[in-house]
Amino acid sequence: MTPTIADTIDQLTRDITPPSEAWRSKARARLDTLTKPLGSLGRLEDLAAQVVAIREGRLASPSGPIGKSVYVFAADHGITAEGVSAYPREVTHQMVLNFLAQGAAVNVLARLHGVELHVVDVGVDADFRGVAGLHHHKVANGTRNMLREEAMDDGQLEQALGVGATLAAEAGAAGQSLVAIGEMGIGNTTSASVITCALTGAPPELATGRGTGLDSAAHQRKIGVVRDVLVKHSLDLSRPLQPLEILCRVGGLEIAAMTGMVLAASSHKLAVVVDGFISTAAAALAVAIEPKALGYLIAGHRSQEPGHALLLEHLNLIPVLALDMRLGEGTGAVLAISIVESAICLYTQMATFTSAGVSEASE
Amino acid sequence: MTPTIADTIDQLTRDITPPSEAWRSKARARLDTLTKPLGSLGRLEDLAAQVVAIREGRLASPSGPIGKSVYVFAADHGITAEGVSAYPREVTHQMVLNFLAQGAAVNVLARLHGVELHVVDVGVDADFRGVAGLHHHKVANGTRNMLREEAMDDGQLEQALGVGATLAAEAGAAGQSLVAIGEMGIGNTTSASVITCALTGAPPELATGRGTGLDSAAHQRKIGVVRDVLVKHSLDLSRPLQPLEILCRVGGLEIAAMTGMVLAASSHKLAVVVDGFISTAAAALAVAIEPKALGYLIAGHRSQEPGHALLLEHLNLIPVLALDMRLGEGTGAVLAISIVESAICLYTQMATFTSAGVSEASE
Repeated sequence: MTPTIADTIDQLTRDITPPSEAWRSKARARLDTLTKPLGSLGRLEDLAAQVVAIREGRLASPSGPIGKSVYVFAADHGITAEGVSAYPREVTHQMVLNFLAQGAAVNVLARLHGVELHVVDVGVDADFRGVAGLHHHKVANGTRNMLREEAMDDGQLEQALGVGATLAAEAGAAGQSLVAIGEMGIGNTTSASVITCALTGAPPELATGRGTGLDSAAHQRKIGVVRDVLVKHSLDLSRPLQPLEILCRVGGLEIAAMTGMVLAASSHKLAVVVDGFISTAAAALAVAIEPKALGYLIAGHRSQEPGHALLLEHLNLIPVLALDMRLGEGTGAVLAISIVESAICLYTQMATFTSAGVSEASE
Repeated sequence: MTPTIADTIDQLTRDITPPSEAWRSKARARLDTLTKPLGSLGRLEDLAAQVVAIREGRLASPSGPIGKSVYVFAADHGITAEGVSAYPREVTHQMVLNFLAQGAAVNVLARLHGVELHVVDVGVDADFRGVAGLHHHKVANGTRNMLREEAMDDGQLEQALGVGATLAAEAGAAGQSLVAIGEMGIGNTTSASVITCALTGAPPELATGRGTGLDSAAHQRKIGVVRDVLVKHSLDLSRPLQPLEILCRVGGLEIAAMTGMVLAASSHKLAVVVDGFISTAAAALAVAIEPKALGYLIAGHRSQEPGHALLLEHLNLIPVLALDMRLGEGTGAVLAISIVESAICLYTQMATFTSAGVSEASE
């Protein structure tokens, strides 16, 4: 790693502290005064306490009970040359246009749940010059083929990390409390599978799924590609974990941007709702870089991709939802935000036993 | 059972047919044209197809993408005399006032998710005359103590079933597509535990939980009460199941009202989102009365009450959410509605591959 990337990482991580335990206790104490049996809101109480601890009590935003945005980072992947996806590479480009035309799943969900949607080009292999409604942060026209060479160079990695970091800082400045990370990138489950193997030591056949819908033969081929990429880049647990090297060699530009967003969001005390397999791979790399970021993460859902469960277990995160989704785009995270926002509204709006004149439980 | 209650049941059930398979296929076919990998919305696709099948394509309402109401049925229970609850009996009354003052958990969630909230007095031991904002359908000031005698008589059962049925018919006439059932009634987990044992054959110690928060000694006492009630009313699986007898002997007025709502909602082709343990006990009785009602049910969540998992398994329903909640009031159902509505919006609002110009997967 070059000195400049070490500086970038230092800058991204040096202000990260764990969420406030004092605020978490305060939140717990308030939850116990609300008109409900103690603890009866289950996970919603944990989520409310976590967000209060992260935000140190600052919850409301001008746009509602809690400010919330989803970022969909889009990029292409050189590994698509190996036939690892059921969909052609140009679908990344086409889906970005679909996001901008409000036609994709994440558009529908963000609109319904009042979540601000940001579409970010970090590395789509298409010319978006002059296209409105898009965050223009293209680092390259996709990564290189990681089966043959490093997916990106240090400069690209630094730039991609910075894209996510900048957007997180902007979200913080705009009074958001929650940011959700999602992605679009044909070929990126292959990258996430390699990252999962590198971080957890899982064998490729357990960490590699069917992505957007491979048949059995193509699935076997994809497992072989994951195995070969691991060998090519000597990514095994026999030597100390180097998350930046992993990112550089086998990551994606959207994955690096999400890693940057997680680190910067933690530093700006924003809760991060993580979407599916690829987003969780990015979040796991962020935690490998700075373990204190873990307290800022909320696992939105558990996807059908087998590697996702491995990563969630590795991070010791229990997902809010488990609906057998495997779409990406931040869809699971946006659905989870509706649950997290519910938790926050219960926390801020419910009556207390005293205010409502309701009798408490006997000892 | 008297002839008049047989007539009532006949009236409630004779128009129930299973949800339309033709519409379910149509919905599946449309889902496969939307800009997402086939099947990648997981459970959301099942939910959308189920609601389309139930509604035979009629989804929108003047108030939004889908009309949705939650009914909170409140009643008291004679069994509270046996010390089965952590909270005093008057909390049922106090919580109804809290609902009307907008201070309870279900108020917060219904407001956030745009669900119309109806609070129904079916049998609270309090005088609500002149109280506004409440559906006044009091059948009695609570049930009798089921450890000593039948909880209600045939006339009361008929009346309580009719309360739910009338409200379901009103919801249908008002253009609602989804009704959620929830309840408030100190002591009613004991009733639900007895019903669970009677319907599934589960032993009392597996079907009886801590309710709103009993300590271990009180929990053991509650298990004993459930066992004694089962013996008192000869409720075991050694003879043919008689759901109306179960309701009459060990039910609650709110439980009977929810059973009536499930049957009438099925007959009016409304989807029914079921909340937690007590609501599911009511729904299971409805299905025991008329198995064709099953296709109208959506299990909103899995609560922490151990008997709830037994009932869900008995009905072969997979809950939408599992957040360790155990509050009742319809809270889990309202949260689940936000997921079901998401599914409907995706179904109606997403672009198709053709309309968005996105390439499809290779064969």
